[in-house]
Formats: sequence, C-alpha cells, structure tokens
Amino acid sequence: MSSIQPLTDEVAASFSGASSDRFRTVMQSLVRHLHAFIDETRLTEAEWRAAIEFLTRTGHACDDRRQEFVLLSDVLGASMATVAVNGPGDSRATEATVLGPFFVEGSPRFEIGDDLTGSAAGQPCYVDGTVRSIDGTAVAGARLEIWESDENGFYDVQRPGADPGARGHLFTAADGSFSFWSVRPAPYPIPDDGPVGELLAAAGRGPMRPAHIHFKVTAPGMRELTTHIFVDGDPHLAGDAVFGVKQSLVKQFVAEPAGPAPDGRVMERPWCRARFDVVLAPDA
Amino acid sequence: MSSIQPLTDEVAASFSGASSDRFRTVMQSLVRHLHAFIDETRLTEAEWRAAIEFLTRTGHACDDRRQEFVLLSDVLGASMATVAVNGPGDSRATEATVLGPFFVEGSPRFEIGDDLTGSAAGQPCYVDGTVRSIDGTAVAGARLEIWESDENGFYDVQRPGADPGARGHLFTAADGSFSFWSVRPAPYPIPDDGPVGELLAAAGRGPMRPAHIHFKVTAPGMRELTTHIFVDGDPHLAGDAVFGVKQSLVKQFVAEPAGPAPDGRVMERPWCRARFDVVLAPDA
Repeated sequence: MSSIQPLTDEVAASFSGASSDRFRTVMQSLVRHLHAFIDETRLTEAEWRAAIEFLTRTGHACDDRRQEFVLLSDVLGASMATVAVNGPGDSRATEATVLGPFFVEGSPRFEIGDDLTGSAAGQPCYVDGTVRSIDGTAVAGARLEIWESDENGFYDVQRPGADPGARGHLFTAADGSFSFWSVRPAPYPIPDDGPVGELLAAAGRGPMRPAHIHFKVTAPGMRELTTHIFVDGDPHLAGDAVFGVKQSLVKQFVAEPAGPAPDGRVMERPWCRARFDVVLAPDA
Repeated sequence: MSSIQPLTDEVAASFSGASSDRFRTVMQSLVRHLHAFIDETRLTEAEWRAAIEFLTRTGHACDDRRQEFVLLSDVLGASMATVAVNGPGDSRATEATVLGPFFVEGSPRFEIGDDLTGSAAGQPCYVDGTVRSIDGTAVAGARLEIWESDENGFYDVQRPGADPGARGHLFTAADGSFSFWSVRPAPYPIPDDGPVGELLAAAGRGPMRPAHIHFKVTAPGMRELTTHIFVDGDPHLAGDAVFGVKQSLVKQFVAEPAGPAPDGRVMERPWCRARFDVVLAPDA
C-alpha cells in the first residue's frame, strides 16, 4: 500500500456527498490518479511549485483569441484520448479526431460546389464526396462545417482583421453528395510562443501539425463527427504535435494542371483535388 | 488492454527526447495517469470542455494577491500528497503540513519573547517551545517563520493596506528555546468566491479550516520543516478543507485569566498559551 493511501482515501471520501453521481465518480477517479502520479514520481515541492506556476501562466495566456489549455490538452494527448473513448465503437464509421482551437460558430453558408476560399491564399483545391450511414444509405441534408489553414499555415482567425477564408458550411444533396472549392492546406506549427511551447521545447518535441482540412458533420439521427482529412505524403504525418493522425484519414491530394475541372470550371493555374466519403454512425 | 493504450504509449514516447531524465520521468507518468483517468471515466467531450473552461477560469482568478491553483491543489489533497511524499521518513521528526497561500517573504524580525500581534486583532496568545534535532540536541539559531490569522479568520495580507500582523520571524536561543506573543488563531473559510468555491459547493464540501498557527523552521544541516499547530477542540479538525490536520500537531491552547504571565508580563485581560516542541530531521 502506498504511504499516501489513507490521505487519498480521505480526499476521495470528501466527494461522497457530491450533488451528482457522475460528478462524484469523475472527481474520485481524478483524485486517485492525481495522487498516484504524485506518489509514483515522488514529486518534489519545487516541482509542485513549478507546476502551479506553469498552470497559472497557461491560464493567463488564455483570452478570446487563444486557448492555451486546449493546446496543453492537445500536446498531452488528452484531447485525442477523449475523442477515442467517445468513438461510436463501429469500425465502419469514419474515424474522429481532435476539434482543435480554430473552430468558430457562425461560419459563412455556402451551396454545393461553391468556393470557400474567401480571404485565404493558396492553390485551388477541389474536394468532393458523399455522406452515408453505416448501412450505406445516403444522408441528405447533412451539415458539413469545413475549416482549414491557408498556404502559410494560418487560419483566418489568426490573421487580425481578416474576413472569413477557407471556412464555411454547406449541406449534402439528396444523394448525400457534396463538393466545394477551397485551398490546399499546409502544415503549420501550433502556437508555441507560450507555456505549451516551453513544454514542447523541454520535451525535445516539435510544434508541427501535418496539413489537414477540418470537418464537423451533423445530421438528424446520426452521431456528430469531428474529423480531418490529411494530405498523403506530408512529412509531419508521423509526428503530429497533437496526435490526431489516423491512417484512414490520410487522403491523396492529386495534383492537376491548369485546364477544365470536374465541375466545368476552367482553371488558369494548377490545382489539386481530394475525395472524402464520410460514413456516420447512428446516434446512440 | 485499454482501447487507448496505443495512443497513451505514443504520447509517452513523445517525451523520450526530453532535455532531462527527471522531466521525462515526470511527464511520462503524468501522461499515463491522465489518460487512465480519461479512459476509466469515459470522460465525455462536454465534460472535457467543462474542465478546460474551469481551468481557464482558475487561471484568470490568479493574481498577485490570490493563487487559485494552490487552492485547487489544496482541496484535491495534491498539496498534502506532495508534503507526504517528501517527508523525512523519520517518525521522531515533527510532522509537516501544507504551506498554504498566505506565506510571504520578508516578514518582520523579532526577538525571543516579542509580541508579533501588530495589526492583528485577537486574544493574546503566548507560545513557547524548543527546537531540537531527532537525537535530542538543541538547535540554536534556528529560524522560525510564524504566520496566522486574526480572530476574524483573516491574515494581514487579506486586509487591504494593513501593516503586518500575527506574522514575523525569530531565532532560537543557545538552548534551542523560543517564545513569542501573538493572537489566538480562529477557524476560517478558504476563499470560496471563485472556481474552487464552485467545486467545493458541487462536492457538498465546506470551505472551513480549523484554527492554526503556521511555522516554517530552518536551520543549517536540518531539513526545512513547514507545519502548523492546530487548536485542540476546534470543531473543524475533522473536516479541514485542505486535509492538513495531523493528530500530532493538535495542541492545547490553555485559557488563562488576567494576571501575571510566565515572562513577567501582567495581562489585563484573559489570554491563552500553547507549547510547541519542534524536532527536526537532518538534511538529506
């Protein structure tokens, strides 16, 4: 038995009168794992003070435009762990990955085939696909939220004063199909000029994420899906700073020369295309 | 095997290039316990978001006068767990307890027998004792830092603009003895108007700490000791909000009538006295 077991038991018991069973369960588990961590590492008081100071600076780095605790959760794999334990448990469904800190409510509405590029710079990229349920049925009217970085690795919300760019939502057609134009995504570093950047540096880790396009797909009767598609061949696929890569989500972004595109547009410069067929699990 | 074990292993491995062995050890243990907590509770994404939001508000509640993360650590028993794993492992030494958020550097200097009351209100309280090592040798010139609340449960630093009160430091005599006057401490609530207060309320827990006087004792060649003495009979001894009570630290604060005190002072009103004999372990 650990020397601190009586203390751990006393602290866990202090949550026995919690207002909800779930809160009691979560807090008692948290207390037991937190104490086990302190016991296992024989955490020193100087290390404890450094941790308090780190958390304080992380809190002070959070504002309306930046969420340093989400970054911290991401680089510790806690975000991805939460995604994993909440999966549909059906291997036919498209795999989920992290939401990240750059989703915003109230994105512009588009129609199928529209161009979401807006203020974003980059090579034109055409994406098409379908949304189906695990039994193969087309999902009409599914809402797709799409957001991604520009060719410099920045989201619109990271460019002060910028209009929306490479961000929007649209709905699938009666046959479950969708398509849109945007820009080819680029790899980028997560913001590493704050406490999380110091942690990555001390760990000898890089801040890079491989290029990706975010999707959030919602439809009545279906489980919400938050995911990305990644660009096959990206050099950072094996070292994603936030552990978000799933092999099933890596897609070919096929280079195409100037000329006619599948929707009849005539492209004046090279472009690329990718396909993403989404499979949703039924709502639990 | 947990379904998230491969992810946990991947995240732990990402710290393998850490700049120090100790940092790697601590972070890998943290990652494993954090992931085990998420896995065991099947933490939902809504709960994860609530945790991120709670930590953010906790950070925003920290400023020069308030350390909400120390409070959080205290009410989760993490502070006391850290104290426990760093104990001298010698049962003859005086037990340690939490530092708390009200210690300040640069306290006023006093001589043996002086009155530390200053700006604090309360019944006069005489404390005397000795500082010895575990082999019984008197420790001369040990530095005692002393701080405590006033009769209303407030420390001097909680009273805006107040001069020091019930706070100071002095040194033991050649025979290891010390004595001082201050005020009888009172039970008090930890600050519960912030995120930690919300957590306590949701847990059905109270914010009270039993009355106590803080000591930090340092001497060359000896392990630093941070501890309290508690007032025997205090109704909150069994429910300290920060789990700091040790039975060996509970002392009788004996009520005395107006009249002569042991150091020759003649008291015009009732007072009280307590004795505290400190035993220090040798430095590791």
